[in-house]
Amino acid sequence: MTTATSSRALAHPERAEIRLESVLHALSDPMRLQVVRELAAAEDELSCSHFDLPVTKSTTTHHFRVLRESGVIRQVYRGTAKMNGLRRDDLTELFPGLLDAVLDASVRQERRLADG
Amino acid sequence: MTTATSSRALAHPERAEIRLESVLHALSDPMRLQVVRELAAAEDELSCSHFDLPVTKSTTTHHFRVLRESGVIRQVYRGTAKMNGLRRDDLTELFPGLLDAVLDASVRQERRLADG
Repeated sequence: MTTATSSRALAHPERAEIRLESVLHALSDPMRLQVVRELAAAEDELSCSHFDLPVTKSTTTHHFRVLRESGVIRQVYRGTAKMNGLRRDDLTELFPGLLDAVLDASVRQERRLADG
Repeated sequence: MTTATSSRALAHPERAEIRLESVLHALSDPMRLQVVRELAAAEDELSCSHFDLPVTKSTTTHHFRVLRESGVIRQVYRGTAKMNGLRRDDLTELFPGLLDAVLDASVRQERRLADG
């Protein structure tokens, strides 16, 4: 199997075009936050089909598009799979500590609600 | 002038009811982020009339309500003024480092765009 990227390139903001407000909006949804947490834990690209979100396929596609257009993830076609990777370097350069603070906050909240 | 709180109490989430997703959503708007930055810098309550946002009064009221209902700010009537304070203790306890990371990111972005 080749890993050649197809010509169906998806639009992404350049690093300088990424805006804090859009990143925060992208992270403000529980499904999208879950995707980001899984990508952060994987430290690798994951295919869209890897994620089993409790929403319709079109809603899943919407969530990934919001994450991509805000600059939180990078999406590339590899063969027939759409692969997703966290833009950790870009986010860390622009907003030091923000992504980790959000990820940590998400884990804390999950534990708190489970204990509650 | 007295500082007695009037009986027109406004609804706020308890600390345990504050949700990360709602906080991120509240912070994902440029106007609301500006309000939070001013409150953080003031380290004190500020009246709604202190803020001169380039939007209508009803939109301003909406933004403050989103901030209050998400748990980011506390609003109390003192006499005829509606005073606003950042719920820094609650946010720091729930989501350590998050508020400061967002505030820092906002300052960095402002500088970056000004330099651009």
